[in-house]
Amino acid sequence: MKIFGSVPNFSTSDENVMELIISTMKEYGANILDVNMDRDHNRSVVTMISDYNNILSVLFNMAKRASELIDMDNHRGLHPRIGAIDVLPIIPMMEATMDEAIEMSKALGKMIGDNLNIPVYMYGNSTETKKRISWIRNMHFQYEELKKHINEEKYMPDFGPPRMGKAGAVMVGARNIMIAYNVNINTEDASAIDEITKKIRSGKYIKNVRALTFNIKSNKYMQISMNIYDYHDASLYDIYEFIKKESDDRGFSIAGSEIIGLLPDDAVAESLGYYLKSKISSKNILEYNILRTLWK
Amino acid sequence: MKIFGSVPNFSTSDENVMELIISTMKEYGANILDVNMDRDHNRSVVTMISDYNNILSVLFNMAKRASELIDMDNHRGLHPRIGAIDVLPIIPMMEATMDEAIEMSKALGKMIGDNLNIPVYMYGNSTETKKRISWIRNMHFQYEELKKHINEEKYMPDFGPPRMGKAGAVMVGARNIMIAYNVNINTEDASAIDEITKKIRSGKYIKNVRALTFNIKSNKYMQISMNIYDYHDASLYDIYEFIKKESDDRGFSIAGSEIIGLLPDDAVAESLGYYLKSKISSKNILEYNILRTLWK
Repeated sequence: MKIFGSVPNFSTSDENVMELIISTMKEYGANILDVNMDRDHNRSVVTMISDYNNILSVLFNMAKRASELIDMDNHRGLHPRIGAIDVLPIIPMMEATMDEAIEMSKALGKMIGDNLNIPVYMYGNSTETKKRISWIRNMHFQYEELKKHINEEKYMPDFGPPRMGKAGAVMVGARNIMIAYNVNINTEDASAIDEITKKIRSGKYIKNVRALTFNIKSNKYMQISMNIYDYHDASLYDIYEFIKKESDDRGFSIAGSEIIGLLPDDAVAESLGYYLKSKISSKNILEYNILRTLWK
Repeated sequence: MKIFGSVPNFSTSDENVMELIISTMKEYGANILDVNMDRDHNRSVVTMISDYNNILSVLFNMAKRASELIDMDNHRGLHPRIGAIDVLPIIPMMEATMDEAIEMSKALGKMIGDNLNIPVYMYGNSTETKKRISWIRNMHFQYEELKKHINEEKYMPDFGPPRMGKAGAVMVGARNIMIAYNVNINTEDASAIDEITKKIRSGKYIKNVRALTFNIKSNKYMQISMNIYDYHDASLYDIYEFIKKESDDRGFSIAGSEIIGLLPDDAVAESLGYYLKSKISSKNILEYNILRTLWK
């Protein structure tokens, strides 16, 4: 059985809104694995899986519902965003291939553009130009700016109209499993932490990780918020220990770290293996082996 | 669907013998998750699952096959043992309960005793006297000694005859998931490492862990070989860091550590959480959530 995952990011942390969106996803055949709502970022991340036959209608109807419920003109939050359904990835899992995920993402992008009148940018493995999320959206160029510039050649969407309503735009693309990981540091010295974030982003010390600095005022610490694009390039261990050392050098301590959403057990096992001087992989993990045995 | 696990320990590390035993297990409906053969211990550990309908016939026929293939009179190895199928646990998983595992283990014990003429000792949760494996078998009282004393009142088996053939005796019982974990230390000072092992066994520093010291001559290090009976009482982190500190104090370093067989993802996540100052549990793990979603 071919299974696809998706981790849509919504520009809201309203529980009632998320409940309605999730009930639509379930109605069309999604299995919801995890929901994470973040008030500081005013953003929610849902992790779901669905099979080959249902994935397209789940994601299309979810996008439709979210675009009706979330008004970007009233959205404020720490995390940069261009739309109500900000990012909509399709992830091949189990017996599904990346090629299938790419085709599926293009079909989904065209459906959203044509039927919901939302501008769609393809990203990740679904675009030949390897257009990066950071290219179309960053701290300085978000929903408000894109709205003004979307009819310019440079910002022409892949699908849908070159104009934005209250739902904003959406980025759709096939990608591999990504881990969202935050490390919190006991300081409010934003520029010092930004030095560390820039080092991570440079790719010289840690490979294939996108990093942003946030000031989490409610808890009086700085946060380095990361997307790990390939946990074989940069493990949780590598990242945590790098930030710990850089923080130590500056006289700060780690307050804690957090996984947003889900991560593959291989990533957990690999990192624990470093600490325990042991080779641990998903092959050692009971649930992984049960799943592999049962899934025919 | 009710699923049971089992982790039979065989007194052999012969690949051909293990292949025959495993093919019998598969024939009767076992899903094999992991096979670990250890030459120093001359012992093999198989991790398997099966459903309610097949578990009894899998384990009975496996025991029958192993008792025909393994001759205890010719067995030498580091690990203490009383029989060809030395230990035969039944572990309730998913929707199966401990009470069901206990009933199942008693039915299996009686079947093996009556039909294979092998003395059977019930252990773990399947005996009211909480007879411990270490009571019936230790470094000084093994197959050879039990053979001489088995007709004494004290060693009377729960099922089967009070006499032993070449297959020896077997311990059968229901228990919870156990983790087999070894830590290797860069020294050949057996008595120094035995001090650490005794501290672990005392239960004062680390709870609910059985520990033995082995001299792994082929690699020139000492090994503390452990069974973790409840990883919530003693995590991999607790144990590794305790041994590391005790080794440091004596001027030794850790060579490495190893998981024998499988461990639940919760145990991996919990220990990594300590190192990363993060609350990680099986709820964060993709495969666990997929399994939970699919298993109805």
